[in-house]
Amino acid sequence: MNQNCLQLNQDKAEIIVDDEDTFKILIATDIHLGYLEKDAIRGNDTFTTFDEILKCAKEKQVDFILLGGDLFHENKPSRRCLYSCISLLRKYCMGDTPILFDVLSDQAVNFSTSKFPWVNYQDENINISIPVFSVHGNHDDPTGADGLCALDILSSAGLINHFGRSQSVERIEISPVLLQKGKTKLALYGIGSIPDERLYRMFVNNQVTMLRPKEDQDLWFNLFTIHQNRSKHGATNYIPEQFLDDFLNLVVWGHEHECLIEPRRNEQQLFYVTQPGSSVATSLSPGEAAKKHIGLLRIKGRKMNMEKIPLNTVRQFFIQDLVLAEHPDLFSPDMPKVNQKVEAFCQEKVEAMLEEAERERIGCPLTPEKPLIRLRVDYSGGFEAFNATRFSQRFVEQVANPKDVIHFIRQKEYKAKVEEDNVDFGQLMSQSTTEGLRVEDLVKEYFKTAEKTMQLSLLTEQGMGKAVQEFVDKEEKDAIEELIRYQLEKTQRHLQQRGVMTEEEIDQEIRSFRETKKGTAEEEDEVQEVSEYRARACRDDLPDDLDLSDGSDFTMDIDEDSTPAPPPRGRGRGSRGGRGRGQTTARRGRGGFLCKI
Amino acid sequence: MNQNCLQLNQDKAEIIVDDEDTFKILIATDIHLGYLEKDAIRGNDTFTTFDEILKCAKEKQVDFILLGGDLFHENKPSRRCLYSCISLLRKYCMGDTPILFDVLSDQAVNFSTSKFPWVNYQDENINISIPVFSVHGNHDDPTGADGLCALDILSSAGLINHFGRSQSVERIEISPVLLQKGKTKLALYGIGSIPDERLYRMFVNNQVTMLRPKEDQDLWFNLFTIHQNRSKHGATNYIPEQFLDDFLNLVVWGHEHECLIEPRRNEQQLFYVTQPGSSVATSLSPGEAAKKHIGLLRIKGRKMNMEKIPLNTVRQFFIQDLVLAEHPDLFSPDMPKVNQKVEAFCQEKVEAMLEEAERERIGCPLTPEKPLIRLRVDYSGGFEAFNATRFSQRFVEQVANPKDVIHFIRQKEYKAKVEEDNVDFGQLMSQSTTEGLRVEDLVKEYFKTAEKTMQLSLLTEQGMGKAVQEFVDKEEKDAIEELIRYQLEKTQRHLQQRGVMTEEEIDQEIRSFRETKKGTAEEEDEVQEVSEYRARACRDDLPDDLDLSDGSDFTMDIDEDSTPAPPPRGRGRGSRGGRGRGQTTARRGRGGFLCKI
Repeated sequence: MNQNCLQLNQDKAEIIVDDEDTFKILIATDIHLGYLEKDAIRGNDTFTTFDEILKCAKEKQVDFILLGGDLFHENKPSRRCLYSCISLLRKYCMGDTPILFDVLSDQAVNFSTSKFPWVNYQDENINISIPVFSVHGNHDDPTGADGLCALDILSSAGLINHFGRSQSVERIEISPVLLQKGKTKLALYGIGSIPDERLYRMFVNNQVTMLRPKEDQDLWFNLFTIHQNRSKHGATNYIPEQFLDDFLNLVVWGHEHECLIEPRRNEQQLFYVTQPGSSVATSLSPGEAAKKHIGLLRIKGRKMNMEKIPLNTVRQFFIQDLVLAEHPDLFSPDMPKVNQKVEAFCQEKVEAMLEEAERERIGCPLTPEKPLIRLRVDYSGGFEAFNATRFSQRFVEQVANPKDVIHFIRQKEYKAKVEEDNVDFGQLMSQSTTEGLRVEDLVKEYFKTAEKTMQLSLLTEQGMGKAVQEFVDKEEKDAIEELIRYQLEKTQRHLQQRGVMTEEEIDQEIRSFRETKKGTAEEEDEVQEVSEYRARACRDDLPDDLDLSDGSDFTMDIDEDSTPAPPPRGRGRGSRGGRGRGQTTARRGRGGFLCKI
Repeated sequence: MNQNCLQLNQDKAEIIVDDEDTFKILIATDIHLGYLEKDAIRGNDTFTTFDEILKCAKEKQVDFILLGGDLFHENKPSRRCLYSCISLLRKYCMGDTPILFDVLSDQAVNFSTSKFPWVNYQDENINISIPVFSVHGNHDDPTGADGLCALDILSSAGLINHFGRSQSVERIEISPVLLQKGKTKLALYGIGSIPDERLYRMFVNNQVTMLRPKEDQDLWFNLFTIHQNRSKHGATNYIPEQFLDDFLNLVVWGHEHECLIEPRRNEQQLFYVTQPGSSVATSLSPGEAAKKHIGLLRIKGRKMNMEKIPLNTVRQFFIQDLVLAEHPDLFSPDMPKVNQKVEAFCQEKVEAMLEEAERERIGCPLTPEKPLIRLRVDYSGGFEAFNATRFSQRFVEQVANPKDVIHFIRQKEYKAKVEEDNVDFGQLMSQSTTEGLRVEDLVKEYFKTAEKTMQLSLLTEQGMGKAVQEFVDKEEKDAIEELIRYQLEKTQRHLQQRGVMTEEEIDQEIRSFRETKKGTAEEEDEVQEVSEYRARACRDDLPDDLDLSDGSDFTMDIDEDSTPAPPPRGRGRGSRGGRGRGQTTARRGRGGFLCKI
């Protein structure tokens, strides 16, 4: 599939020409500098790839680099790590190349926590050729009494622009960095990593606000950078996409390591999400095995195009699952010398992966010689595990992870893993809403996925019933309710703005919803009710010509997707107001230039 | 005395006019950024004073800042510490002020360990107004597989020039940074901190070499920066001044925290030594109580002048010793309620110090409000110590060290302290040699001091004998022998160069000296013999007009002090060769430009 997408991208890349109105932005995230830096084989991996990324930015002559957090793996990076990072930034991002875009927003607000609260390329004493903008991740987040993070060291040296930092735990007000290149206006929003549970609550409690330019709102391309769980790691331990404001055009989602860099359209929110993924595998899990890429994002007016750029210095990683019980023809627990047979079979599997790695590496001189290899062996069903370390050691000359090539798991562990991978509530909700905004579908889908997982794990009917029951535990229910309540209140705000319902009417609806919430026994009824309310409300709100196709198109024009008739105020799209503001209003402060939505 | 010196300095400061030939160098050392950074009262002290130092450098429009090591207190400075340091350097040392001196030496050699091996102010991408040159100290020395130190982080960001770093443990070859401002040529030598014992051995084994420009040697002002023990902390646990080459003109001695910044002439080596001292008290010992200064060093041709600049942000520190046994009129151990009396007396003493501190602080708005106060109470002779913490807590509102205002010591401890303070072998040797180069005097002086110490500690004759015996222990003897051997071999090299003795003759002398060394019983005979040899050899070597006065003069002219008749090659002074080299020979490499001496 990736091959096709890449093809598609290359075909359409011509749509946006590199000209004086086109922002060229190198997108990368989760570089994790310093990960395993003391490892004899992999110690330099993160630095080598950061070098490649920066070199690419220079060669592609990008306007700036946008990082989605976790530039550093350690909250307190080692001396070597800081030294290498600073040296690389100085090498590639300093120079005489002129910067062709302007900052229109009040930089003292954008970089309020810095001692040098202005974009680095405007500093008279530092010659920046490629500005780097970054939010912080969970690995390099601010800690301690001074609330400093590793990025602040880079920013104090004038090497990066650390943005998207919230100073309050009570309320987050995201003031975008407003950039303009030629006629293209780019509003760069960002929010550095915050514990997911806390940010989830803050969204639910409407404590997160995004400011927008007061005028010409429809002329801005709105890009948001976030570093949070996107896949669900527990009831409220992630950020559902629909929490994000729908005036956004593109969300750059950091933190998730799987490369899903092709912008995927969220059909409910009508924005696109790109998940660049990490540039180094920090765990030997399937998500990390996807080929690593960075992106060259072009933005012209309200059109965008994402060019996928494969990273060549990334160590190959192959992972394969082997469920012993699925091969009754080959071995069964009571077979004589079954252990030797299993071990021999595992060896074949590993060798096959090694061969594949070698084939793929041909013609790629930058790719490290030794790949990462992981064979996950589910030995449930009466089989025995053999010595994984000894087995792994056989490949000491061939692999980069000679301590843990093989990993034994039991059914239960595997089951849990599958659940983790598949049950993405946010994504399901987003999908289901595009298919008619039926929350009950979402819930059905939810349990269907759960069922599938159960089937995979070969549970008995009784076991399944128990498992389903577990899914409907209190925490889960609360989360669903909370999510629904959030959607409801959001709809309420929409309706209120349009004057369809009076505030009193809405309050009444909310109250009655809350009443129904009191009974915790009949979830289906409740979900049904809320969904009907929500569907009714939202259908009125949606444009008629909404394209519900699941486009994996890399190039898009925001305006084509927008509502024809703009609302009188708020999140409208489509109505192009006159020009006027722009550079002359720079540094006017958010009071004058930005407004809450 | 300091007052007089300061006066002297001010009177004579006019001698060197600030013109296009005058280097203005801000001299500071042992800033110990981050020392006690988590202390509620003293946490900001080091940063505040670093700010003052940099501000002073800016106001005085110095050409560069020279630091003698231990800029950082911790080998791995905290994030806050790095952040603050980088921010301050960026604030004060970047700007448009042009740099008016040139680097003539091969910078790739001077800064060979850097990824950016050139002086920071010549980097096209960084606008440096005040270059900082620094050697590393023992607190911020290179460690780990990569041999990086905290200074390297600053240097990778282009904020300082880390020099004087040796890459070999076998041999140190110090290649100076050759600077020229107008007609003044300044050779900046430096050696970052090395464990004293190791460096001592290396000096003794002739493994330390200083390179010099091949031509016009007598035109250069030779400045050496070192960060080692200057006072003797054990037999070979310091660097005697006479180890340093005598072609040097000024030694900036870091590591020692007492401010002895007035250049003091070493009458044997004929160079001056300035010991700026730390800018923060990192221990509550007498040396730290001396008023803290930095220096503004002016160098024009071969003349120099050191202007003492008091630091205003340094926390006051008062220390006083109280020997209870010395006040028989006030209290004796068998007096009723003696403890209360002692405590009351101690309180008076502390209060007196507090009053003194307050008086001194009047008109000094930058001086922190709470001083450091230390009362050392020698309670030997049958007295009892009272609760020091409880006592200290009485001054919690008035002092910066409310946990340890009082410190009880016993005679023995005190005695050890006195020894530590007084027996400076290197200094004694240096003194004695200036008085006729008689090593036996040195040894007599040595034991005399030891005796004095014994008297102080009120030992019995028997105890004294034992103590003296302890002084003549094996380690000490070895150290004396080694030092003598070093001097002897140095003399030998001198004589060899002059052709007075054949190499064979010298070998014979050395052999016979080594023979005598074999017997370990008769130290006096041995020392006598060596001293006679040495004295004979060195007298021939010394100029007739050697000024033996202990000059505390701040302004000196190197040429006035120099030997009239220069030796045919090597360390000659006085013979002015023709001009010629200079800027045109820059970056010619040490092979062409520098020679070993």
